Amino acid sequence: MSRLQFEIEARDGAARAARVTLPRGGFDTPVFMPVGTLATVKALEVGELEALGVRVVLGNAYHLALRPGTDVVQHCGGLHRFMGWPHLLLTDSGGFQVFSLRALMRIDDAGVAYRSHIDGSPHFLDPETSMAVQAALGADIAMAFDHCPPADAAPAAIEEAMERTTRWARRCLAVERPPHQVRFGIVQGGTDLTLRRRHLEAIAALPFEGFALGGLSVGEANERMHEVVAEVAPRLPEGAPRYLMGVGRPEDLVRAIGAGVDMFDCVMPTRNARNGQLFTAEGRIVISNARHRLEDRPIDEGCGCKVCARYSRAYLRHLYVARELLYSRLATLHNVHVVVELVRQARAAIRCGRYAAFAAEFFARRAAADRG
Amino acid sequence: MSRLQFEIEARDGAARAARVTLPRGGFDTPVFMPVGTLATVKALEVGELEALGVRVVLGNAYHLALRPGTDVVQHCGGLHRFMGWPHLLLTDSGGFQVFSLRALMRIDDAGVAYRSHIDGSPHFLDPETSMAVQAALGADIAMAFDHCPPADAAPAAIEEAMERTTRWARRCLAVERPPHQVRFGIVQGGTDLTLRRRHLEAIAALPFEGFALGGLSVGEANERMHEVVAEVAPRLPEGAPRYLMGVGRPEDLVRAIGAGVDMFDCVMPTRNARNGQLFTAEGRIVISNARHRLEDRPIDEGCGCKVCARYSRAYLRHLYVARELLYSRLATLHNVHVVVELVRQARAAIRCGRYAAFAAEFFARRAAADRG
Repeated sequence: MSRLQFEIEARDGAARAARVTLPRGGFDTPVFMPVGTLATVKALEVGELEALGVRVVLGNAYHLALRPGTDVVQHCGGLHRFMGWPHLLLTDSGGFQVFSLRALMRIDDAGVAYRSHIDGSPHFLDPETSMAVQAALGADIAMAFDHCPPADAAPAAIEEAMERTTRWARRCLAVERPPHQVRFGIVQGGTDLTLRRRHLEAIAALPFEGFALGGLSVGEANERMHEVVAEVAPRLPEGAPRYLMGVGRPEDLVRAIGAGVDMFDCVMPTRNARNGQLFTAEGRIVISNARHRLEDRPIDEGCGCKVCARYSRAYLRHLYVARELLYSRLATLHNVHVVVELVRQARAAIRCGRYAAFAAEFFARRAAADRG
Repeated sequence: MSRLQFEIEARDGAARAARVTLPRGGFDTPVFMPVGTLATVKALEVGELEALGVRVVLGNAYHLALRPGTDVVQHCGGLHRFMGWPHLLLTDSGGFQVFSLRALMRIDDAGVAYRSHIDGSPHFLDPETSMAVQAALGADIAMAFDHCPPADAAPAAIEEAMERTTRWARRCLAVERPPHQVRFGIVQGGTDLTLRRRHLEAIAALPFEGFALGGLSVGEANERMHEVVAEVAPRLPEGAPRYLMGVGRPEDLVRAIGAGVDMFDCVMPTRNARNGQLFTAEGRIVISNARHRLEDRPIDEGCGCKVCARYSRAYLRHLYVARELLYSRLATLHNVHVVVELVRQARAAIRCGRYAAFAAEFFARRAAADRG
């Protein structure tokens, strides 16, 4: 019996509503997973995530291995106990980070030599080490260690990264894992549809419990990304979760769910919040703007989050301008609520067979606000 | 009928346990009031304060008038509604701030000209303006606008400040106030017991609903402060709350409660928390210390706060070192819990007539830890 149960409850076009069940918990899809890079979703407490209905959170092997160190997390009973999170954890393998943080020193089939982005100290990561770290952290879902080339890489470099990612995927699968852990493979291939389909076939042939699209939202045009998602997502194995890595803008979620993606993560809702950008049904507002100074109304009148129930834009602007710690917390709580709620509504629409109408309404509201 | 009811429930030596009732709420004493300078107790949400049993929080007329501006708070329905706090608010008059922030430009009987500590812009504060700001904020307890000289001021300067504070106190009382508001007078006089007693008599003769000791914990020796408190606190009017301003170290609370003080405020529990100093029954720990790196136990095993129930020292140290926003929140929650709980236990001890034993046990635990 598989460690991961994936039950599709409804389909609507390419979109699906499903239930993922793992040895230590489960979640409904489509799902947005908040990012808790350093064993905390920045500014939020685990109880708040739980109250938002979140049941799976991301951690990051690269970051946690540097700070606080794998030994600390392991000594404290694993990442769940360390951060007080009783539900599921997905950990990223570190592949994306060693490339994106420009820490890269040398890469070959053996692995990646890189410098810590904190103190410049030299480190080495390979498939075996990454899986060992993810095992030590106690992740419920471990991601394969992949080679993620930049958006502007030449086709030959993208092909090389694809083939290395496939070889590394086999090595990841050969590593012993904790009894509760499942592993997801990552499809690379840049924005070239032929390469994407080729790599999809290679990765889909391996015994992963789930499949991710990596190497997107890394600088390519947004339209190009959606073309790739529309082409590749529906071809990922039907009976397993499909995960689009690093994507979480509301408008991107709505489109990618329509293309058949089940899982998402992104730092954007949390990072935008801290930077003063708050989500509303009509688009983003910039809370520092002087027009919010005397605005005694919530961020979004239609929002059901506890921040909108209690606090005004004027108060949030004041906290932001005064650099008060409470600002980041309230702003993050709101933005995560918006994204989690959007995905929940998308799921409900799929189950009612009205996803196309749901997506059309979402974009019509945005367009009306843009015109207004 | 007075706007403030003060019912003494128990006495034990000079210490008292009482209940303060105001038009919009009440609280038990002894009480520690967390400081919410800028319309937020830094890093905490009002729901958390409520859950800790806090029923009165401080705001600050000086700071709020500069940021966000009295007009903003007033436009948003007053400070309670602006910050989402349904219980009581005490506002400081700004007297202490214009002197302590070294912003002072000129002082005479008319008032104080000072520069904003934010942008250097010139401002003016006098008793009438301070009371008007505190009325606009909607404070339940407004403090008189006083002249607070530094700890090292010459006796003549202290006398001048005392006499000015008395004249200003009369002007504060002459200002019209909201129907729910009570006013507390402030006793100055430095560390000279004769001057303190003289000023006490002057202020106690005025129709304030409560009385505060100001100008302490401003740089004088700690022992000297306690001598003044022991001498002056018991002589403050028996039938009104006695408030020691700016004092909140656990050891200072225990001593001052023994001298008959009912109310306290201090930034120290919250500021120390943010700076990495956490309270335990045995004294302070510095969470950044390397010895906490692998410590899989709470800040204080005997503490009943939700941080100690869920998180280890190792986790808090990690958050502190990684400068994670969650750190300040958890640390503040713990330190405020400790102080609030200490004062609650002090109250229980007074009601049982065993305050002396309570205080002795408190200091014995500290002494044992220091020896250990």
